[in-house]
Amino acid sequence: MADPRFFTRSGPLSLAQVAEIAEAEIVGCERDPSHVMISDVAPLDSAGPGDLSFIDNRKYVEAFTKTNAGFVLVNTALVDRAPEGAVSLVTKAPYRGFALVSQALYEGGQPQQSEISDAAHIDASATIGEGCQIGPGAVIQAGARVGAGCVIEPNAVIGKNVEIGENTVVGATASLTHCVVGARVLIHPGARIGQRGFGFAMDPRGFVKVPQLGRVIIEDDVEIGANSTIDRGAGPDTVIGAGSMIDNLVQLGHNVRLGKGCVVVAQAGIAGSTQLRDVDAGSGVGGSPAMDQRTWLRQMAMLAKLTEMEKARKRGEEEKP
Amino acid sequence: MADPRFFTRSGPLSLAQVAEIAEAEIVGCERDPSHVMISDVAPLDSAGPGDLSFIDNRKYVEAFTKTNAGFVLVNTALVDRAPEGAVSLVTKAPYRGFALVSQALYEGGQPQQSEISDAAHIDASATIGEGCQIGPGAVIQAGARVGAGCVIEPNAVIGKNVEIGENTVVGATASLTHCVVGARVLIHPGARIGQRGFGFAMDPRGFVKVPQLGRVIIEDDVEIGANSTIDRGAGPDTVIGAGSMIDNLVQLGHNVRLGKGCVVVAQAGIAGSTQLRDVDAGSGVGGSPAMDQRTWLRQMAMLAKLTEMEKARKRGEEEKP
Amino acid sequence: MADPRFFTRSGPLSLAQVAEIAEAEIVGCERDPSHVMISDVAPLDSAGPGDLSFIDNRKYVEAFTKTNAGFVLVNTALVDRAPEGAVSLVTKAPYRGFALVSQALYEGGQPQQSEISDAAHIDASATIGEGCQIGPGAVIQAGARVGAGCVIEPNAVIGKNVEIGENTVVGATASLTHCVVGARVLIHPGARIGQRGFGFAMDPRGFVKVPQLGRVIIEDDVEIGANSTIDRGAGPDTVIGAGSMIDNLVQLGHNVRLGKGCVVVAQAGIAGSTQLRDVDAGSGVGGSPAMDQRTWLRQMAMLAKLTEMEKARKRGEEEKP
Repeated sequence: MADPRFFTRSGPLSLAQVAEIAEAEIVGCERDPSHVMISDVAPLDSAGPGDLSFIDNRKYVEAFTKTNAGFVLVNTALVDRAPEGAVSLVTKAPYRGFALVSQALYEGGQPQQSEISDAAHIDASATIGEGCQIGPGAVIQAGARVGAGCVIEPNAVIGKNVEIGENTVVGATASLTHCVVGARVLIHPGARIGQRGFGFAMDPRGFVKVPQLGRVIIEDDVEIGANSTIDRGAGPDTVIGAGSMIDNLVQLGHNVRLGKGCVVVAQAGIAGSTQLRDVDAGSGVGGSPAMDQRTWLRQMAMLAKLTEMEKARKRGEEEKP
Repeated sequence: MADPRFFTRSGPLSLAQVAEIAEAEIVGCERDPSHVMISDVAPLDSAGPGDLSFIDNRKYVEAFTKTNAGFVLVNTALVDRAPEGAVSLVTKAPYRGFALVSQALYEGGQPQQSEISDAAHIDASATIGEGCQIGPGAVIQAGARVGAGCVIEPNAVIGKNVEIGENTVVGATASLTHCVVGARVLIHPGARIGQRGFGFAMDPRGFVKVPQLGRVIIEDDVEIGANSTIDRGAGPDTVIGAGSMIDNLVQLGHNVRLGKGCVVVAQAGIAGSTQLRDVDAGSGVGGSPAMDQRTWLRQMAMLAKLTEMEKARKRGEEEKP
Repeated sequence: MADPRFFTRSGPLSLAQVAEIAEAEIVGCERDPSHVMISDVAPLDSAGPGDLSFIDNRKYVEAFTKTNAGFVLVNTALVDRAPEGAVSLVTKAPYRGFALVSQALYEGGQPQQSEISDAAHIDASATIGEGCQIGPGAVIQAGARVGAGCVIEPNAVIGKNVEIGENTVVGATASLTHCVVGARVLIHPGARIGQRGFGFAMDPRGFVKVPQLGRVIIEDDVEIGANSTIDRGAGPDTVIGAGSMIDNLVQLGHNVRLGKGCVVVAQAGIAGSTQLRDVDAGSGVGGSPAMDQRTWLRQMAMLAKLTEMEKARKRGEEEKP
């Protein structure tokens, strides 16, 4: 169970409610699902009789067959492996169902309370929407516009004329400048958005900085990881497409354009002016310089093989009289 | 045109002024260049008749021949490819000229106004030069000295006895300690300067921390990227040479010494005690471990070739009856 | 000598005291070691007659034979190479001894003074132990518990119900949430601890965020580098074992478990759910994907050799008539 000091659970849900949230079909329950209660979510190996778990990967079949979970989200292919005591909730997307039920149990019951700290520094010309939470030490500069229901955590800095949509969260000490941010965006602590890009003309007399005259546009439902950095454009804007997920310590250079739903893992860097758009379903890249992932794995295997051959050859030479 | 919410343009410049700033020669203008006005800067593909653009790379010749820009900075080799409607400004360094004119249009007209926020926390023993801007939540600790014309952005932290030269900018929530910083330095948000380096004696009884007794010295005209980290020296100082440009999320370990005008791209790391000095003009390195860039590219090509040969060999084997 | 603006030296130590601290045997001193004073520490090449230096690596033998240091920590194998003027302090662990003496000289004499800034924002329900130093702009939220003797630097943010052990330091603008931190932990500026991990269910209808219901547990005596990021667990906790040293800009994903005394160098990333435990003494890994370090170096050598062979072959072909 989640540590109640840090997480607030909103009360049990009935099996019927859980099945509806997860878009799943109940299998193996003889009682009225409106009267069977589910109190928590947990992984297969630690879940108990009142808990919901899930399996979406054959790798975990053994844990599944041994689980004490009272309820398990499972796809059709694995449902016959369910242990006796467990009620199956059959769905094509067990992990998605688990995510939605977890949200309902832990995030659903928290009504947003407007709370603007006296110790926040909000310029008189800034506009703050209804129901915002603004922490102590947060700075909101002249002309900035913060939409309704936003959370601006302590010591975050919102620069001049920055625009933020509804229900967006800006993490502790994050800084935003020269940017327009959509709704339901989640910006983690220490992220840096909109600072000038790395642009200068090289010259024997000394580098000459090129003013970076673009912005950062962050569309709706984006997540930006802790301490990630997104530079503003040099002229055109830097754009992060709707629903993109960016992990921690990621660098996005000036003029980068991510399409919708891009996923960028931790510590990845995307060089200035790169565009990420649709790739073929299931495709992937690897290596440095980047290449098709299978080609890269094949090259790595080749290298290993050659090295082994060379070792064998040397051993052969050494053994010769 | 740059978003006026974020950028202030200081008014048009005459063609004569622009030519002087860019150190360029005007070609193809029949009117008095003191009476021809240039209002903005823009890339070739979006520039209009009142705009200045530039070309310094043959890759963009096609965009150049089709541009609607009224004025283009161009070098001698490409000047005959200029489209009919455009006035050429011929110079050996078109990008440098573009940078200088952009600065004049967008940064020239902003007189520095002294403005020290009541919500900044400045120790009584700190010294603040004339004309500084200090944002709300900025902390300047005992004995620190901030030169004239500096900008200390909101929630930045200047540690005890830190010394900062004139016209330096410290970005939002950046932190400086145990360091001496020159003039006209630009430190981006979230940069970390002067914390103790990663120094400890390994011992089976537990690691023993080695006090890091050096400083960070940042010479004039350096730029340090967002969320980059520069540790102070273990004994000798960590030194960043004048005019060096350091991108975002860069790590410089204790005792690193960069010479003048070094460029360190995003997410690069330089291990403790490394010295970066002059390399042969035009040289470069790549790969891991680092090697001469051409050697590295040749090795990568070799690997690709071997892998293709192996694939062909396997196909051959499979086709055999 | 360390810059007195940034470092406070607590006064000279006698040779006898130094030998005791470093667990070393004095060789080559004819005077009473209680009356011979050592005033500072320094590297071999800059140390003078009143300074203590050390050598623990044959690489530096030449510097050792030429040093002007009055006192040198040295192991048995090298003691006969000591220069005439130097007193040897013979120990199996010269660097450890140097670390301990440096601590005594530079950190021993600073009694902790309780000092809670009026400009810190401390929630009335937070608990602050005795002798804490809390800087201006630091935010300590509801229910947080800070142990005795802690230092919370300016603009750091301690989240709701976070628990911190005794004598821990939280650097400027660092942020902590959903975590329990041990004693004597050193968290550098800008570190991000406890934010939600990178967890979501992929779905054609849009990614669904999975609530991250675990915590970060940081055991005693850990060091966490500047701008490093440690995500909280997805369900189980993320755990950093006692005495671990984590450098700058490191990423530790959700559910990562480090054992005791792990060392993670700058800019390393450890993917979610990875466990770091004991490895064989002296073992190491390299390359991408990671492999045994010797295998990796052998592969790199193989690649270099093949590339050279190919170059030679091509030259041979070109020379043919």
